Amino acid sequence: MTATTERPTTGTTAAAVPPRVDVAALEELLLGTYAQLRRQSRAIVADPDFQKIEGLSVAEHRERVLTQLRRLEAEHDVLRSFPARLGGADDHGGSLARFEELVAGDPSLQIKAGVQWGLFASAILHLGTAHHHDTFLSDAMHLQVPGAFAMTEAGHGSDVASIGTTAEYDAQAQEFVIHTPFRAAWKDYLGNAAVHGTAAVVFAQLVTAAPGGPRVNHGVHAFYVPIRDPQTLEFLPGVGGEDDGVKGGLNGIDNGRLHFTGVRVPRTNLLNRYGDVAPDGTYSSPIKSPGRRFFTMLGTLVQGRVSLDGAAANASKIALAIAVTYANQRRQFAGGAGDEVVLLDYGQHQRRLLPLVADAYATAFAHEELLAAFDEVFSGRGDTPEQREDLETLAAALKPTSTWNALRTLQECREACGGAGYMAENRLTGLHADLDVYATFEGDNTVLYQLVAKRLLGDYAKSLAAVQSDRSDLARFVVDRVTDAALHRTPLVRAVQTLGDRGDARRSVGQLRDTDTQRELLTDRVETMVAHAAQALAPARKMSPERAADLFNAHQHDLIEAARAHAERVQWEAFTRAVERVEDAGTRQVLTWVRDLFGLTLIERNLAWYLVNGRLSAGRARAVTSYIERLLVRLRPHAQDLVDAFGYGPEHLRAPIASGQEQQRQDEARAYYRAQRASGDAPIPEKHVTR
Amino acid sequence: MTATTERPTTGTTAAAVPPRVDVAALEELLLGTYAQLRRQSRAIVADPDFQKIEGLSVAEHRERVLTQLRRLEAEHDVLRSFPARLGGADDHGGSLARFEELVAGDPSLQIKAGVQWGLFASAILHLGTAHHHDTFLSDAMHLQVPGAFAMTEAGHGSDVASIGTTAEYDAQAQEFVIHTPFRAAWKDYLGNAAVHGTAAVVFAQLVTAAPGGPRVNHGVHAFYVPIRDPQTLEFLPGVGGEDDGVKGGLNGIDNGRLHFTGVRVPRTNLLNRYGDVAPDGTYSSPIKSPGRRFFTMLGTLVQGRVSLDGAAANASKIALAIAVTYANQRRQFAGGAGDEVVLLDYGQHQRRLLPLVADAYATAFAHEELLAAFDEVFSGRGDTPEQREDLETLAAALKPTSTWNALRTLQECREACGGAGYMAENRLTGLHADLDVYATFEGDNTVLYQLVAKRLLGDYAKSLAAVQSDRSDLARFVVDRVTDAALHRTPLVRAVQTLGDRGDARRSVGQLRDTDTQRELLTDRVETMVAHAAQALAPARKMSPERAADLFNAHQHDLIEAARAHAERVQWEAFTRAVERVEDAGTRQVLTWVRDLFGLTLIERNLAWYLVNGRLSAGRARAVTSYIERLLVRLRPHAQDLVDAFGYGPEHLRAPIASGQEQQRQDEARAYYRAQRASGDAPIPEKHVTR
Repeated sequence: MTATTERPTTGTTAAAVPPRVDVAALEELLLGTYAQLRRQSRAIVADPDFQKIEGLSVAEHRERVLTQLRRLEAEHDVLRSFPARLGGADDHGGSLARFEELVAGDPSLQIKAGVQWGLFASAILHLGTAHHHDTFLSDAMHLQVPGAFAMTEAGHGSDVASIGTTAEYDAQAQEFVIHTPFRAAWKDYLGNAAVHGTAAVVFAQLVTAAPGGPRVNHGVHAFYVPIRDPQTLEFLPGVGGEDDGVKGGLNGIDNGRLHFTGVRVPRTNLLNRYGDVAPDGTYSSPIKSPGRRFFTMLGTLVQGRVSLDGAAANASKIALAIAVTYANQRRQFAGGAGDEVVLLDYGQHQRRLLPLVADAYATAFAHEELLAAFDEVFSGRGDTPEQREDLETLAAALKPTSTWNALRTLQECREACGGAGYMAENRLTGLHADLDVYATFEGDNTVLYQLVAKRLLGDYAKSLAAVQSDRSDLARFVVDRVTDAALHRTPLVRAVQTLGDRGDARRSVGQLRDTDTQRELLTDRVETMVAHAAQALAPARKMSPERAADLFNAHQHDLIEAARAHAERVQWEAFTRAVERVEDAGTRQVLTWVRDLFGLTLIERNLAWYLVNGRLSAGRARAVTSYIERLLVRLRPHAQDLVDAFGYGPEHLRAPIASGQEQQRQDEARAYYRAQRASGDAPIPEKHVTR
Repeated sequence: MTATTERPTTGTTAAAVPPRVDVAALEELLLGTYAQLRRQSRAIVADPDFQKIEGLSVAEHRERVLTQLRRLEAEHDVLRSFPARLGGADDHGGSLARFEELVAGDPSLQIKAGVQWGLFASAILHLGTAHHHDTFLSDAMHLQVPGAFAMTEAGHGSDVASIGTTAEYDAQAQEFVIHTPFRAAWKDYLGNAAVHGTAAVVFAQLVTAAPGGPRVNHGVHAFYVPIRDPQTLEFLPGVGGEDDGVKGGLNGIDNGRLHFTGVRVPRTNLLNRYGDVAPDGTYSSPIKSPGRRFFTMLGTLVQGRVSLDGAAANASKIALAIAVTYANQRRQFAGGAGDEVVLLDYGQHQRRLLPLVADAYATAFAHEELLAAFDEVFSGRGDTPEQREDLETLAAALKPTSTWNALRTLQECREACGGAGYMAENRLTGLHADLDVYATFEGDNTVLYQLVAKRLLGDYAKSLAAVQSDRSDLARFVVDRVTDAALHRTPLVRAVQTLGDRGDARRSVGQLRDTDTQRELLTDRVETMVAHAAQALAPARKMSPERAADLFNAHQHDLIEAARAHAERVQWEAFTRAVERVEDAGTRQVLTWVRDLFGLTLIERNLAWYLVNGRLSAGRARAVTSYIERLLVRLRPHAQDLVDAFGYGPEHLRAPIASGQEQQRQDEARAYYRAQRASGDAPIPEKHVTR
C-alpha cells in the first residue's frame, strides 16, 4: 500500500539475497477461508456512510448507526447465519467473518449488528422453536423489531445463573409474569434498550408448579417480551427503564436499563427449546440436569465471543498498519550521519511495535481456527457435546487474549505516534475507547480464563484417573491429554522425547529457533502450571466448602496465569500451522521469524518462571533476549510488508498520518534544507561561527 | 468516607490486635507540605461548575472550560507562582500543588490552566525581562489575552532544537520576521490556538547578522506574537491555522495549528532573558554555549512535567478510591458459605488492585519530594546549575513513571469495575481518555527516560574518572555516586556492606521485609544496568558517528529500562522516607506493608533480571512471590482505609458505583431473599426437588 525506501530490494549488496515477502499471498493467507466474504464486508465499510464520524453527539451517533444497520439489512447479505428456509444461508462461520470486518467502519456498527442479529435474533433462533421462528424471527432479522438481549443485570454480570428477574407461570391465565424484584435485578447495559428496541429476549428465573406440586425454580430461561409500542416508542405497561447515557466508547449503541413490574406474556413466549411449561404448569426439558441445561442454553451464545476475538484481531491490525506506516515515514532527531532518523529505525521503536505485529499474526491465525471450530459445531457437521465444550473452551481462551492484546496494541500504537496519535482523526484513541469494553463484556476476561483453567484442571484429573495403574507414564499422559484439549483435537507433532533434557544450559542459542524447542517450552509451562495447581488444590475435596473456597481463592491468580499460558500456546500452535501452509520461500522465512518473535516474546515475558522452575539456565535465558534483538533487526525491513499484508486500504485506515502525508511533509522539509544549502543561502549555525 | 464491614475493628478475635490505620493522619501525610492549598483547590472543584460533564460537544466543552478559567482567575488564588510585585505570591511549589488538584474537576481545566499560566504566561515571566513583564504579563495572567505556547511543530515534537519556524531580524525595520518555511513547520497541538488565543509565545530559530557579519542562526528563541484580533477573533495578517478537531480526550481545550507568513513583530518582542538582539542586529547572550543556552531556556519549563507528575498521582488516587470502594461492596458468585463474595475478597482482585494502591502511594510521596526540589530551585533558595540539572533529571524520571502508572491504574480499575466501569458516569473511561496524552506531551515519556539514562551514564563516567587511581574502590564509588544522584542528594543509609552476600539462597524469606534488602536489590539493579550499558557503549568514543549511533541504538532499550529502574527506585526511597515520618504505630505498620508491596512488586516484575544476574536464587525468587501473596492478604482489610486516606469526598469521586449505591442495592437484594426464605415463600430450586 505504501511505498517506502525501507523495503528490501532484490539484489542488494548483502552476500545472500535477503528473503522477500509476497504481500499478496500473505494477505490471502490472512484472509483465510472466508476471504471472499471478508473482502465484500471491507468493501461495504469503504463507503463513508458506514464509517464512524468522531465528535458526533451521542444521539446523532445512535441514529447514524441504526440507519447503517437498516442499510446493511436492506442492501447487503447480513443474514447468512440464519436458516436457508428463512432467507439465510446456513453459513455460520462466513457470517461471523463478515461481521468482524465491520469493526473497520465503526465498532458501534459491529456491536449493534451483534446485538440485533447475533444476540436478539439468534436467541430466538437457537433458544426458540418453530412457533418463535414463525412468529418473531422474521421481524427480528429484518429489523422490523429492533431488540434487546436482556440478560445482564445491574447486580449480576458474569454470574448469569444468579440473576434476580423472575418469570412465574400463571396456569389460570396461561401467562408468564415477568418481574423485577429489586433494584439490583434491573437489566443493564443492554444495546437497543435505551431508545430503539421494541422487544427484548429477557432472561429470568422460571418458576412454575405442576398441578398439585410445589412452586419450583427451574433456573434461567429466555422469554420474548415486547417492551415498547412500535409506533410511539413509549414503554408498554409495566415496563420501565433508563438510558445508560454516555459510555467510554461505542456511543453509537443505545445501551440502557430495563425493569419489569408484573409484565404478562403468553405461555408460548417462553423460548422453549431447552425447557418448556405445559398449559397446566408442568415443566419439562430434554436436559435433565439444571446445570447442564443452563450451560447448554448459554453455549448457543458462544458466537459473541468468537466474533469479538475476530474483531479484536482486526482492530489490532488496523492500529499496527497506521503506526508502522507512520514510523516508516516520520523522522525525529538527527542520527549519526546527521540526517534525521525514521522512527522505526530506533531500537526501542522496534521493541515497541514489532512484537505487537507478531501478536496480531498469532491472533489472526488462531482466530481462523476458532472460526473453523465454530462453523463445524454450528453447521452440525461436528456437533457433539465434546466438540461444543471444546469450542467453548477455545473461545473462552482466545477472546480474553485477543481483546487484551488489542487494547495493549492500540495504546502502544497511539503512544508510538506521539501527539498525532492522540488526534481522533488518526483513529487510535477512538478504537481504544470502543474496544475497551470488549475485555469485560460477553464474559469478563478474568472470568473466562477461570473457565479455561477449570477445564484444564478437569482434563488433568481425567488423565490422572486414566493412568492410576501406571504412574510412570503419568507425565506423558497428562501432556497428551492437556495438549490435545489445547489443540482442539488437531494432530500433534510434539517432541515429547525432548522433555528429558529441558533446562540443559549447553543447548546453543540456535535451538531457540527450533519449532520443537519453542513448543516444548510453551507446552511444558502450561502442563507444569496445571499440575502444580491441581496438586495444590487436591486437598479441597476433603475440606468444608468454606475452606475449599479459600484454597481456590489463594490459587486464583495461578489458575488465571495457567489459562493465559494455555491460550498463548494455542495461538502459537495456530501460527506454526499457518507458517507450514506458506509455499513461497521468502514469505515463509519472514513469517517464521515473526512466529519466532511471538514465541520468544512469550517466553521472555515469563522468563522468571522458566528460571525458577529450572527450565532455562541463566545463559539460555540471556539467549532468549539476544535472539529477540536479532529478530527485531531482521524483521525491521519487512515491517511495512507485514502490515500491508493485513490488506487494509486508505479507505479503511483513514488516518492522515498513514496516508503518505507525513512522507510528503518530510520530503518537502528535506528538499527545503537541501535547496537552502545548495544556494548558499542558509544562515550559519552559531556554533560554526569563528569568533 | 465509606463505611464497610471489611474494616478491622479494635478487639477482634485474633490473638494480637491487628494494626489500624489512622486515616486522618495518613491523609495529612499524603497532602504533604501544601495541605492547606490542596484542600482549597479541592474545595473549588467541589463546585459542580468546575466539574466535567461527559457527552458535551467539543464546542460546548471548550467554552465551559474557558468560563471556568475566567472564574478561577476572578475568584480564586491562581497566580501564586507569579512575583509578589505583580500580584502573585512567589509561591512556586504551592502554586503547582493547587493546579494539580484541578484534575479532580476536569483534566481539561488543569491543562488549559497549565497552557495559560504554566506555559504562556510563565514563558513571558521566565524567558522575558522587565519590558515583557510590564507589557504583556498582566494581560496574560488575568486572561485578557488567552495565549498559545507555540513550540511543538507538526514535524518536530520532542526534538525542539530542530524546529523549522524562523525569526529573522530585519535591522532596518527593527523587527523580527516570523516565518513558516514548509508544512512540517506548522505549529501543532497548541492549546488556545484553535479558537481562544489572541497571542502566542512562538519558538523559532533566531537568525540575525551583526553589522557587516554573516547571517547566523542562534538557535531556538521565544517571541511574543499577537495572532488574532481580540475583538473579532479573526487571524491577523500573515497568521493562519487550523483546528485540531476532536482529540482522544481533553476536548475542553481548543488545540490547533498555527502558521506564519512573514509576520513582523517589534525587535523587543523577543523574550530576551537568555539571548538578545541589539537594534543593529548584534546578538548577545549571558550563556556562551548555544547548547547550554537552549537547555537553560527549556529548563524554565520543567514545571509542566512536575505538575503532570502530580496530576497523574491524583488521577490514580481517584480511580483507586472508586474501584476499591466498589470492590468492597459489589458481590459476585457464591462463595464457600453460599453467600455471594465481595469482589475484593477474591485473590485475583487483590492482585489487580492492591499493588496499584502501593504504586499510588509511592507516586504521591515521590511527587512531594519533586515539588520540594522544584520549589527550592524556583524560589531561588537553591538555584545552582547542579540543582537545576538534578531537578530536571528527577522530573524526567518521575513524569513518565507516574503518567504510565496512571494509565495502567485507570485501565485496570475500569476493567475491575466491569460494565459499570465503562459507563462515563463512573469517571474511569473519561480520566483514561484525558490522561492518555500525559504520556507523550511535555516530553514524550520514552524520550524523557533517555534523558535520565544519559545523566546516569554521565554520572557513572565521572565516578570512573574520579577513581581511576584505585580500581578496587570502583564498585563502592559508583554506588555512592549513582545513588546520590538518584536520591537527589539526600543522605544515604545504604547497606553497602551487605553487597558481598548477594545471591545467597539461604537468606530467609523474612529478609525481603527488610528495608536494606529491598534497597540493595533495587539499587544494585540500577547500578549494574548502568555499568553494563556504559561498558557496552564505551567503544562508541572511537567510532564514526554513524557506527556510534548504531551502537547506542542497539542499547536504547536497555538504557530506557535502566532509567525506569532508577525512577522506580527513587519512588521507593521517597516512600521509605515517608514511612519513617509516620508516628502512629498501626499506620506505620500498614504503610510499611504497602511499601513492601511496592518494592517487592518491582522486584517481582524484574525477577528474571535478578535470576539471570545471580542476584536472587530460585528459592529466594519464589519467596518474593509468596511474600507478595502474604502482603495482599494482610493489606486486604486495610484497603478501604488506604484509599479513604486519599481524602476525596463524593463530590470529587462523583462515581455512582462508589457512592454507597452499590451497598444499598446489595443489601436490598439480600434482604429480599432473606425475607423470602423466612416466609417460606421461596420457590424450591429444581435440583432440590425429589422426583
